[in-house]
Amino acid sequence: MNESNSNSTKERLLSSGAVLICEKGYSGVSVREICKDADTSMNMIHHYFGSKEGLLNAIIDSYGENVFVLPLKLLAKEPKSKDDFISRIELVFETTLEACIENRLSLMIAIREQNSPQALINYMTGFKAFIDISIKKGFARKELDSEMITGFMLDRILNQVQYAPWVNNEFSIDILNDPSYLKRWSQSNVDVFINGIAN
Amino acid sequence: MNESNSNSTKERLLSSGAVLICEKGYSGVSVREICKDADTSMNMIHHYFGSKEGLLNAIIDSYGENVFVLPLKLLAKEPKSKDDFISRIELVFETTLEACIENRLSLMIAIREQNSPQALINYMTGFKAFIDISIKKGFARKELDSEMITGFMLDRILNQVQYAPWVNNEFSIDILNDPSYLKRWSQSNVDVFINGIAN
Repeated sequence: MNESNSNSTKERLLSSGAVLICEKGYSGVSVREICKDADTSMNMIHHYFGSKEGLLNAIIDSYGENVFVLPLKLLAKEPKSKDDFISRIELVFETTLEACIENRLSLMIAIREQNSPQALINYMTGFKAFIDISIKKGFARKELDSEMITGFMLDRILNQVQYAPWVNNEFSIDILNDPSYLKRWSQSNVDVFINGIAN
Repeated sequence: MNESNSNSTKERLLSSGAVLICEKGYSGVSVREICKDADTSMNMIHHYFGSKEGLLNAIIDSYGENVFVLPLKLLAKEPKSKDDFISRIELVFETTLEACIENRLSLMIAIREQNSPQALINYMTGFKAFIDISIKKGFARKELDSEMITGFMLDRILNQVQYAPWVNNEFSIDILNDPSYLKRWSQSNVDVFINGIAN
């Protein structure tokens, strides 16, 4: 087996695993079904991921890498001014939202299985540190309890992505595939958050 | 069958249904299992709820009534002053959080099945109207796009309740059963929201 075949089998397993686990739940899907859908033999999950649980962890880790690594980088440096502080929050909101939409299947799995990747924990720690230094520099309100608000933007984004089918069903708005609606939603929500935390 | 027996059978079905549907998912549990757990015969689901789907809807409706009716009442009257506006937001946050904790099982089912009660839609409509009148009276910022932020507090509260087991597992904090933590969390989050929307 050459490198290219090997990669594509692994990727097919990740992709079939994500679709089927999202649809049926982790305990509702078998290794056999995933391998059949990925058009490969049953020992390939063992080969690439060690076990069914290894495949689940790989799906959740890839979600973590794809969604939280860039926002964490955006928060890593101290803000230089209040404008820089605000820009950084706006950028984190936008990039996180885009990445969550692109990685919707694995996001749904992480939520359903209550199994979050290390990258999410790192993001929350990084967010807290960014708020703390922003308070110290006078860009954020000193009353903020940074530890209690690390999930503020994230809750809003995760739920927008998670409940999109319900909104579509209830209000006939396809919130994830309507760029003008999505822009309006992002701007309104990041505006409330920034006004809520800025000094 | 007297009234009291009749109520208690119905309530046992609602309770067993909530526990089992939350644990196994709606499609993963049978009418037989629910009736066995509720210690009643299979035709009782038909008698009280028409069908398995009728039982699901009754569970979700009871969640809607228990969680959203009081907050909606708190938002129904126009705020008389900025203080009244702020107090009302604080009260809605606190009462919604408490009710979500008390109705955690049915809340989880509504989320998992992407099936929301009419009372939630009414709450969102009422919240939008409250923000609109508050903007008009000068208590809330005129830049707010009321339609886009109706879920702001709710996302935060629902996720606090939904992800409590994950937080407990990851950070060893039992967020729903630690009153001082819950108070600190509520105050910090309602503070960010009020600063985000008040004029």
